[in-house]
Amino acid sequence: MLSQVVELIENNNKFAITTHVRPDGDGIGSSLGLNWLLRSLDKDSEIIARDDVPSSYLQLPGAGDIRKVSEIDREYDAVFVMECSDIKRPGIARLDEQFVVNIDHHATCEHFGTINWIDPTASAVGEMIYNLCKAIGGRVTKEIAECVYLALVTDTGSFHFPNTTDRTLKVASELVKAGVEPSAISEVVYNSYSWSRVALMQKVMATVKRDETGKVAFMRQTLEMVEETGAVDGDNNGFVNMPLVAKEVFASVYMREVEPNSYRVSLRSKGDLNVASIAESFDGGGHKNAAGCRVEGNWDKRESELVSAIVEAIKKMDKQKPIQIKEEFELSLA
Amino acid sequence: MLSQVVELIENNNKFAITTHVRPDGDGIGSSLGLNWLLRSLDKDSEIIARDDVPSSYLQLPGAGDIRKVSEIDREYDAVFVMECSDIKRPGIARLDEQFVVNIDHHATCEHFGTINWIDPTASAVGEMIYNLCKAIGGRVTKEIAECVYLALVTDTGSFHFPNTTDRTLKVASELVKAGVEPSAISEVVYNSYSWSRVALMQKVMATVKRDETGKVAFMRQTLEMVEETGAVDGDNNGFVNMPLVAKEVFASVYMREVEPNSYRVSLRSKGDLNVASIAESFDGGGHKNAAGCRVEGNWDKRESELVSAIVEAIKKMDKQKPIQIKEEFELSLA
Repeated sequence: MLSQVVELIENNNKFAITTHVRPDGDGIGSSLGLNWLLRSLDKDSEIIARDDVPSSYLQLPGAGDIRKVSEIDREYDAVFVMECSDIKRPGIARLDEQFVVNIDHHATCEHFGTINWIDPTASAVGEMIYNLCKAIGGRVTKEIAECVYLALVTDTGSFHFPNTTDRTLKVASELVKAGVEPSAISEVVYNSYSWSRVALMQKVMATVKRDETGKVAFMRQTLEMVEETGAVDGDNNGFVNMPLVAKEVFASVYMREVEPNSYRVSLRSKGDLNVASIAESFDGGGHKNAAGCRVEGNWDKRESELVSAIVEAIKKMDKQKPIQIKEEFELSLA
Repeated sequence: MLSQVVELIENNNKFAITTHVRPDGDGIGSSLGLNWLLRSLDKDSEIIARDDVPSSYLQLPGAGDIRKVSEIDREYDAVFVMECSDIKRPGIARLDEQFVVNIDHHATCEHFGTINWIDPTASAVGEMIYNLCKAIGGRVTKEIAECVYLALVTDTGSFHFPNTTDRTLKVASELVKAGVEPSAISEVVYNSYSWSRVALMQKVMATVKRDETGKVAFMRQTLEMVEETGAVDGDNNGFVNMPLVAKEVFASVYMREVEPNSYRVSLRSKGDLNVASIAESFDGGGHKNAAGCRVEGNWDKRESELVSAIVEAIKKMDKQKPIQIKEEFELSLA
């Protein structure tokens, strides 16, 4: 709970903060925001992480000071674990021996901490750090604001996803008051790639097709494309969503060759169409509208199986009632 | 001024609302928002426009009732003209004979109305309509909220552009409280295209190249591409920005063939790089970071001239100080 977190901070002095492996904007932004908050309260605090910070986020204040570790090697009064579903997600040994404060916004999060502050109504852990700052009577400095704002932007898809609430936008407004330039954060998040992203996009976009019904789009990324363009992790962020701009497309399948005859698959859907269950039937998983799996074997055959499974799911839904964007996507009628 | 607008509405009954030709999200959203507000106050009000509403915006409540006219054909106490730089922008005859209320958020707007309410601090005219609603003591209904929210989203590029203020986000928060589902509006704005957008994107993306310095990207759209894909107006929204995701790219040139040997050109830039002055040297115009022009003649030659002009501008800037993203894009340093 929030009050326990406030009390813990007030009564202790030496903290570490960590987040999950392959950290995203919310993991990095919320960790940095909390670190700036603790320092503004004259606490001894540092961020530790197993993996590198994605290069674009190195533009955030303090991101260069994150210390890479694979096991706990110092003494702390408590370790904050940000946006992790379980104690193993940070990939740091001996973390389970620490006084752990588990801060997350996923309802499904395991209560692995000594203190567990889980708030599923928060759009991002960053939003919770803003709340913590207010609860503890801290000042929202420009540094805190920038880090937390980036967390909000990345975890809500720039205030597009259904997790965007009036509270999210109110907090964003307060962060701008505290000195954030929204366009500066957008530059960091969206325009900090290398040319390799453009080059890879050209090649992947060229493969986009749709099935006979026109409702399912699919696309491919070969090992050769990655080699030719020099693409790095993250360069293909969001590619899977591109075909969804078409109103008539309900789902998108993006297959990436990871080694010959082995593919990582991303699935995306709109509305009530559930691609998590499709992914599960291929030993994968995820959320209703965003899921993934690994498949092996003949590319054409596997792709065709995935697309067919989705087409069948759409047909089944259409029999009950014509598929449509879920209620929350419908506007009130005049 | 706002108080004059409030008084006018309170003391009159029969209104029309219009906006500029080829209306955008702010023009349509703010007009619809005002229309819903006036009706909630039991006023007689309608929206008139010369051009069709873009099909995606027809999903907004009330958009189907907009009446197409080319001249004023009814009696009104006053006509609201939304987001227009001058009295001719709506393309409606006899408008200059009316009691005109000019509502705009561009500082450069001519004061062509009997009443002129110009607020350059507003991110969108939609934001002003929210302010009007509060000032007049109206209730922010779900219909008003949805229309105004769409105006905010489109005119701020989903809260990315520098015109996004703490006030913009505060208003957005209030609109969500009034019933807006942000993800529903995003579906309308970003995912309501036809497959032709995807097909055109594939062809245009395939042409993207950069110059020798790597700082200027350029791309083409032929008449044949449009014909083959069945693309319609708006299908290429945002294509010009795609190469700007690369940090090293400072400008983008997008040439569209409108008839053989005649091209419409869009220019985009980052930071201090001024493409309006480039456009002006080709008899075009625009803003510092977003401008356009028309050119004729040999395609390769014209493209090369445009790219060279931008490369020269970058070189000239680099001599003064190395080109960089403008200050407001820089984050505070740790």
